[in-house]
This record gives sequence, structure tokens and C-alpha cells, in this order.
Amino acid sequence: MTAGGRLPFDELVTLIAAIFRRHGCTDATALIIAENMASAERDGALSHGIFRIPGYLGSLRSGWVDGAAQPVVEDRGPAFLRVDARNGFTLPALAAARPALLEKVRANGIALLTIRDSHHFGALWPDVEPFARDGFIALAMVNSMATVAPAGGSRPVYGTNPLAFATPRGGDDPLVFDLASSFMSNGDVQIAAREGRLLPEGAGIDRHGQPTTDPKAVLDGGALLPFGGYKGAAIALMMEVMSAGLSGGQFSFEVDWSAHPGAATPKSGETIIVIDPDRGAPRPFRDRIETLLGAIRAAGGERLPSDRRYRNRRETLRHGIPISEAALAELHNFTR
Amino acid sequence: MTAGGRLPFDELVTLIAAIFRRHGCTDATALIIAENMASAERDGALSHGIFRIPGYLGSLRSGWVDGAAQPVVEDRGPAFLRVDARNGFTLPALAAARPALLEKVRANGIALLTIRDSHHFGALWPDVEPFARDGFIALAMVNSMATVAPAGGSRPVYGTNPLAFATPRGGDDPLVFDLASSFMSNGDVQIAAREGRLLPEGAGIDRHGQPTTDPKAVLDGGALLPFGGYKGAAIALMMEVMSAGLSGGQFSFEVDWSAHPGAATPKSGETIIVIDPDRGAPRPFRDRIETLLGAIRAAGGERLPSDRRYRNRRETLRHGIPISEAALAELHNFTR
Repeated sequence: MTAGGRLPFDELVTLIAAIFRRHGCTDATALIIAENMASAERDGALSHGIFRIPGYLGSLRSGWVDGAAQPVVEDRGPAFLRVDARNGFTLPALAAARPALLEKVRANGIALLTIRDSHHFGALWPDVEPFARDGFIALAMVNSMATVAPAGGSRPVYGTNPLAFATPRGGDDPLVFDLASSFMSNGDVQIAAREGRLLPEGAGIDRHGQPTTDPKAVLDGGALLPFGGYKGAAIALMMEVMSAGLSGGQFSFEVDWSAHPGAATPKSGETIIVIDPDRGAPRPFRDRIETLLGAIRAAGGERLPSDRRYRNRRETLRHGIPISEAALAELHNFTR
Repeated sequence: MTAGGRLPFDELVTLIAAIFRRHGCTDATALIIAENMASAERDGALSHGIFRIPGYLGSLRSGWVDGAAQPVVEDRGPAFLRVDARNGFTLPALAAARPALLEKVRANGIALLTIRDSHHFGALWPDVEPFARDGFIALAMVNSMATVAPAGGSRPVYGTNPLAFATPRGGDDPLVFDLASSFMSNGDVQIAAREGRLLPEGAGIDRHGQPTTDPKAVLDGGALLPFGGYKGAAIALMMEVMSAGLSGGQFSFEVDWSAHPGAATPKSGETIIVIDPDRGAPRPFRDRIETLLGAIRAAGGERLPSDRRYRNRRETLRHGIPISEAALAELHNFTR
């Protein structure tokens, strides 16, 4: 057993993969989830790292998700792919379709992949960043389970429904962002409730539809609110249409895991659009993006969305990923 | 001359088209702009109706825009179209490319159109609604001129950069929204300044980058803020990349009309993505969208984004579009 402290990326991947194999995932699925989770740890996105393992395992143990599912890739047109994840995780479904998706965007200039009956429980930016490294713009949209009220509504309908975007720029590291369409995450509300802290104004409503800063009132029959008022609500609605609606998956309000105690992964849909920027701009696209980013810096703009992740990544790839002794022991326990 | 009161849609179109022909637009361009503007009046979207005529004419008179421009449609791949608007308005460029774009989405399942060197001064929802009436999901993104500060920044870089989305649903009228990525429009700040009203909290910053509710401080070297904080700022950034970056058009901060006094139309870029939903969902897509909208209603959700426009439309198509005597006289004056 490796001692706590700092783990090399590959060692963390191997350890997490062993946990998922032990809980009914195929070798390929275990490795894909492990790489995704280790990438979150590597980049300092801890809320989507090993913290999520108990949720994944709860879904696997309760039979809510099938770790051995074999996704079925369906060719639906020269620029359109559809995947039936067959109640498995989204990541192996995306991996199964990725080569064909790249072929389609190279051939046509734009291509779309939509995935249904899939469980998305990781961060969304890892779904788009690799496409930008291959030279493409990528947009990803996913729905989850109902925690967010529609504009003016008093009960949850939407998931926290994130949107991720990646674009090539000058240099190797693309510009990437990943933002929930809710004011904050449901996990952060749970943490605030546990720690007895109030929520910021605008975060949620109580069971009567009234604005509240009490996290317990949000969790007890209330709802989160979208970010940015009715505009964020429109974006949350668009995410439902584009992910669950377009894929034929479940809307967030349809997710019902009551027969699967311990389940934590939302069975929903995801859509990814990939675009070849060199078909568009008659001027060199990457240079133009640098011009834009230069103007943002000159206007005093904050660091860009992905800057912090890349800084963490450089640091942990050099010195290892920090994992406490206790967390490491728990990881090893999960493999037994 | 028709008396003030209520004008039939077609009569308003004819009148507005005469104004644009009189100011150097081709017959086709004049008609397209007139239909767009009359549609805004018809639907009660008055900020994008005849109110904008002086701005359009200022751009035409100053030579900033070419009303006789012939857009050049370039085929850039089986699913990718690019249009050089040749310093004309965006609407005729979109109209020129629309048949080929529909052919491409029918053939491939998704298709993209990107337009550069184009002036977009109308509402954005009319660019997407017709695609949804033809059975397709459509997304449109456009940039404009720098009025909005990036996250943490103190000077404007982004335009108010709207996003429009349309999807078919049950029945004839699609679900459509159109939202600026700024907290509010620059026009509304100007109106508040004129009327001596304060802005809502979060609307803008002064020339020192400090939050202010004084509209004059925003206009005098300050900036608007994005809606929803850093998330809205990320969306504004995405709009710059997707419209100006992808098309090869000008970023909002590059728009410089100082040599064209009276110019008011931003020369920028637009990108439209059109998707065939029947390639995605194995279940009937329109029924599924109705299921989603039913859940929103059941949760007490407010009327849907496009409801008000359709209500106004039904009313004005039956009884005519209300135009005051003074406004009508001004329209006739513009034709001379």
C-alpha cells in the first residue's frame, strides 16, 4: 500500500480502477471512470474527484446503474450520432462514439453526439477538453435530477444542468469552462446545512416557493433557483431539451430511483456538439482567440475559467496528487 | 396616407420597405428588414421595432453599412456554410444562405451557418423561429459592440451578445427564447439616464470598475455587467468565440465607427446551428417537449418565454398593429 501524501496520476488511476472493477464494472469502464476522477483530483476539482466514489458505488450496489453495460452507437446521419448507453455510465458511451464523432466533424465541419439512458456523475469539462486539444470547438450539455425550480415556479423541475464549452487557442491548453445552470450545487447546499451556514441571497426557495437562505428549507421540499434569474432558467430549460429531449433520455423530473436505495447517479441524457473552427474563420482562428483573450486581460478581466485547473494540473503532475492517509486507506478499503 | 391607429401587418411592411429602399437598400434587403421590424412590432417587441429606424438610417447615411451589399455564400463542407455579408445587414445574408442550410441539416442531421462582416440590429428570435416552424431546433449567437465588462474587469469588452433558441413542440408555435448575456440592454441604461432613474443592483460599473446604480456613470466610461455574475460572463465570452471568432468577423471591442458619425449598427458576426431532432429521440420529440412543458406548468412555472409574443401576435394579426399618428407621420417622412 502506498503511504498518504502525494500520488502519481497513474497510480491514482490504477487504484480507482480497481475499486470500480471490484464493484461490477468492466475493465474498460473502470479505467475510463478512474481517469476522469483522477483528472478531477489532479486539477483541484475536488467536488468531482474521489469524494464521489461512495455515490458511484451506491448506484452500482443498488442495481440502479449497470457497470457492465455495453453502449450501442447508432449512426443517424452523416453528422449525427446517437448512443444508447443501456443504463451504463455516460463516459464509456462517449468513449465508444468518440472516434466516429471525430471522423464526422472532420468530414462535415460540425457533428453531434447525443447519449441516452446514461449516468453522468463526473465533471463536465473532461467531456469537452479533449476535442479542443484535437483542434475543435466543443459544447456539452447534460441534465441530471430535479433540484431546480423553473422561473416563477415553486417546485424543482430542472437538474443543475451544466453547460461546458471548450475552444482551441494559441498554445496547447484550450480555453474551457463548465458551469451549472443553478445558482449553486445541491452538494454545497447539503454542506451548508451540515455546517449550519446560511446560503447567499437568490440560491433557493422553501416548500412554499418563498425565497430563503436557510439550506434546510431548500432541502426540505424547497428547490434551488437557476443562476441569473429568468435568463438562467431559460438556459436550464434549453439543457433539458438539448440533452434529455434530443437524446430520448429521461428529463430531470423523471428520474426516480426510489426502488434503488443508495443510488446517487442521475440517469439522464447528454449532447455534445463538435465544430471545426478552420471551416469558419478566413483568418487564423487560434490567433483571433488570443486577440480576444488579450483584450479581456487589458480590461482587467480576472483569470480565465480554466487557468486555475491548469495551474493545479502542472503542480500535481510534477509533485503528485495530494491524498490524505485516511482517504488513501478508504480507497484501499473500497477495493476489498 | 393611412391614418394612425392600427395598421395591417402587410401595410406596415410595405411602408417600412419604402423607407429602406429610399435609403439605398436593394428591394430584397428593404423587404427583409421591413418584415423583421414589422414582426417585432406585431409581437410587441417594441425595442426592436420601428424605434430602431433612425439607427439603421444613421448607419446607411454615414456609409458605415452597405444597403446594396450582395452577400456571398461559401460552401465550407457538407454541414458547414459561411457567408461574407460584405458589410451589409445580417438578415439578407441569412436569407441568402437559408435554403442551402436547410438542405444541409436535412441531409446530415445538423448544420452550421456562420456570417461575418454583417450588421445585426434587429431582435434575434426572428432568426431562429422559422427553423423551428420547419421542424428543427435552432441556436443563434451574435456579438455586437463593447458595452459589457468581463468578469472582474473594469472596461467593456463584450457586446450584449444575445443567445436565441427555438425548438418545435406540440402545436404550431415553437418554444423560443432570446436573451442578452448582459444584465440589461444599453438602450435601457440610456432611457434610465434620460428619465433620471437608478439602475438595479448588479447592472453596471463606473469608470473605476466600481459597482454603480447611476446610469450616467455606466455610460460615462463605465460598463454594463453580464447577467448572473461570472457564469453570464463565460456565456458572453462564448458568444464572442462562436460568432465573431468562428465567422472571422469583428469582435465587439474591435467595432470602430468613429469615422462614420450617426452609425448605430454593430458590424460583427453571427452563428446559427440547426439540428434535426428526429435523428435523436427514439420517442416522438414534440410529445416529449410537451411533457417537459407540462411539468414546468405543474411546478407553478411562469408563462413560457415566447407566450407573450404569440399573444400579441394573435391580437395584432386580428386587429392590426397599433401605430400612433405621430409615429405614422414620421414613417412617411422617412420615405421622402
